[in-house]
Amino acid sequence: MHSLTVCDHIMIAHSFRGEAFGPAQRLHGATYAVEAEFRAPQLDALGLLVDIGLARRELRRILDALDYRNLDDEPDFAGRNTTTEVVAQHIWTLLAQACRGGALGDGGKRVTALKVLLRESPLAWAAYEAAVG
Amino acid sequence: MHSLTVCDHIMIAHSFRGEAFGPAQRLHGATYAVEAEFRAPQLDALGLLVDIGLARRELRRILDALDYRNLDDEPDFAGRNTTTEVVAQHIWTLLAQACRGGALGDGGKRVTALKVLLRESPLAWAAYEAAVG
Amino acid sequence: MHSLTVCDHIMIAHSFRGEAFGPAQRLHGATYAVEAEFRAPQLDALGLLVDIGLARRELRRILDALDYRNLDDEPDFAGRNTTTEVVAQHIWTLLAQACRGGALGDGGKRVTALKVLLRESPLAWAAYEAAVG
Amino acid sequence: MHSLTVCDHIMIAHSFRGEAFGPAQRLHGATYAVEAEFRAPQLDALGLLVDIGLARRELRRILDALDYRNLDDEPDFAGRNTTTEVVAQHIWTLLAQACRGGALGDGGKRVTALKVLLRESPLAWAAYEAAVG
Amino acid sequence: MHSLTVCDHIMIAHSFRGEAFGPAQRLHGATYAVEAEFRAPQLDALGLLVDIGLARRELRRILDALDYRNLDDEPDFAGRNTTTEVVAQHIWTLLAQACRGGALGDGGKRVTALKVLLRESPLAWAAYEAAVG
Amino acid sequence: MHSLTVCDHIMIAHSFRGEAFGPAQRLHGATYAVEAEFRAPQLDALGLLVDIGLARRELRRILDALDYRNLDDEPDFAGRNTTTEVVAQHIWTLLAQACRGGALGDGGKRVTALKVLLRESPLAWAAYEAAVG
Repeated sequence: MHSLTVCDHIMIAHSFRGEAFGPAQRLHGATYAVEAEFRAPQLDALGLLVDIGLARRELRRILDALDYRNLDDEPDFAGRNTTTEVVAQHIWTLLAQACRGGALGDGGKRVTALKVLLRESPLAWAAYEAAVG
Repeated sequence: MHSLTVCDHIMIAHSFRGEAFGPAQRLHGATYAVEAEFRAPQLDALGLLVDIGLARRELRRILDALDYRNLDDEPDFAGRNTTTEVVAQHIWTLLAQACRGGALGDGGKRVTALKVLLRESPLAWAAYEAAVG
Repeated sequence: MHSLTVCDHIMIAHSFRGEAFGPAQRLHGATYAVEAEFRAPQLDALGLLVDIGLARRELRRILDALDYRNLDDEPDFAGRNTTTEVVAQHIWTLLAQACRGGALGDGGKRVTALKVLLRESPLAWAAYEAAVG
Repeated sequence: MHSLTVCDHIMIAHSFRGEAFGPAQRLHGATYAVEAEFRAPQLDALGLLVDIGLARRELRRILDALDYRNLDDEPDFAGRNTTTEVVAQHIWTLLAQACRGGALGDGGKRVTALKVLLRESPLAWAAYEAAVG
Repeated sequence: MHSLTVCDHIMIAHSFRGEAFGPAQRLHGATYAVEAEFRAPQLDALGLLVDIGLARRELRRILDALDYRNLDDEPDFAGRNTTTEVVAQHIWTLLAQACRGGALGDGGKRVTALKVLLRESPLAWAAYEAAVG
Repeated sequence: MHSLTVCDHIMIAHSFRGEAFGPAQRLHGATYAVEAEFRAPQLDALGLLVDIGLARRELRRILDALDYRNLDDEPDFAGRNTTTEVVAQHIWTLLAQACRGGALGDGGKRVTALKVLLRESPLAWAAYEAAVG
């Protein structure tokens, strides 16, 4: 199995509901360093899994809708806590759609699995991964 | 599949028996940067895989029994070399018990797999991973 | 010259005033990985620049007043943009006071210079450094 | 499942054929930070997955044939683009042969899977992984 | 003293003349992770050392003239080895000109010192730093 | 001012005397990731600050006398705590001697300052720096 990973980051505000969150119930924020890993069993004739330029552009397009925002105000997350786990799955869903929809070219259509990992601090990160297709 | 990883570290002394170890047969030591990755197919109603505060506390509790110690003197490792591989599996076993025993709350009981990775230097690391349940 | 650096991190929300900030004028947030570097020309009789336990405790005490907060609401920053540069200098000021005031023990009183560096993303960071005394 | 990872790096020149590569069609180069991950279900009597010294030596031997070279001139890659994906698979193939052939000792023969990851920049990397045997 | 650092990277080919370089006399390449550190004693009224957007844009503009190129063919380096030390100083010179010339706005004109650091591998890097003015 | 940094690491055991050390009074250990930074105002005719091969070899030679050892038994540290600060200064002294003595060639003799930094964990490091000459 081949994999290709591209990275970017976003800076967001949010707050959490639930006593389990302690001080994180207050409005605070995070830099999420985002790693998007594309997997496919075969490369194309050029030796590529996906076009890295398209992969970066689509990841950036998806992140632009979150970057420099208060996630508490985003309709996509209404009624939900925007934990690192939830945001990772959200980005995964949009990036999987981009692969299937052709935004990453033919390479994106051959992607069989995708993993999106968000580093919230030097000491904690979360990821969501699943088959695409 | 979701995953959540928390990090900590320990500083231990040890020596190895076996010619294969060369100079590492002498008493030396290591800083182990420890990464504990919890996996589960579902998040809870709060959007969490496990309570990150409980995860850090339990990992720390397990590491406290190893930290600032000479592993050659620890009964848990009697008669065994405390290679990075062995120490990773040891921490895995205790952390899996903590998940199953409820020390990480309901989230910990839903954990289906666990990976413990120990970085021994910038150029080498070892891990143990397996299903929990 | 000797130096000793200890690290920690905070997760904050804030917004900026000024067209130069573009989308960062919106409420957003950051994880700041914080590195506090203490400098002194001499070590003490134990071979220490400062007691690393005291250094971590004081840094944490200072960061607790910022962590999981919206800096737009903090009186300490009223009327000012909480850029990474400004927050680094703010932490520097409090940590320098802690050194001079004895909170880091005799070692802290011998500290001649201090640098506080805040990493806001994998691709950008800011620092403030100056003599203490 | 146990895993052990060792790291090294190479510095190579190459160019790519295909409009998709844009400016990377020009002769340029890369530092590839290489991570070789060995996996096996059991450790040996010494507590080792593979002898880390042998693992490093064999990885280095394989990398020496690529290091400080223009991959456009290497017969092994004739008619192919040496994308990070392709170079990762090339190193994988040689390292898997080394495991099966005994160059990593008995531990290497027990390796059941291998992953070779190449970091081409702080923001992009590729890997190849598969069962060995 | 305040400092602000922004990062980017380039991927270049080159070769070295001189027996001291050993195998690096062959055509090879490097990924240079580039860190540009701006220093100034004062921040502006907005709390900024330099406009981070302008800093990134100018650094990128300078790097575009080197990225995806064989430095052996670049007139700027005719008759010189493009060691990491030399390339760092080259980027420093252009970035210092950009500061003085106003491309980084008023903030850039207040920069008193600049450091450009290039990481050539996980185990080696070089930098050039000097006063600007 | 130019600088060039090369990295390596050692794995040592030791214990500390003094109540301030708490649990670190017990025999434990550390992986020290070592960064040696050479500084000089001029490069040689080849574009080098020091020969990076010689720099690595001399750093390795110095580290070999510490690596895989219990520093409590080393005569060089008799009666002293081998804190990270102390070990950094020890390596600095030997590396400065190597520069002055010619072991790093003519480049080493032109080195005007040296910094040795030891990372003891992801969250703490110490360094010693001074003029050489």
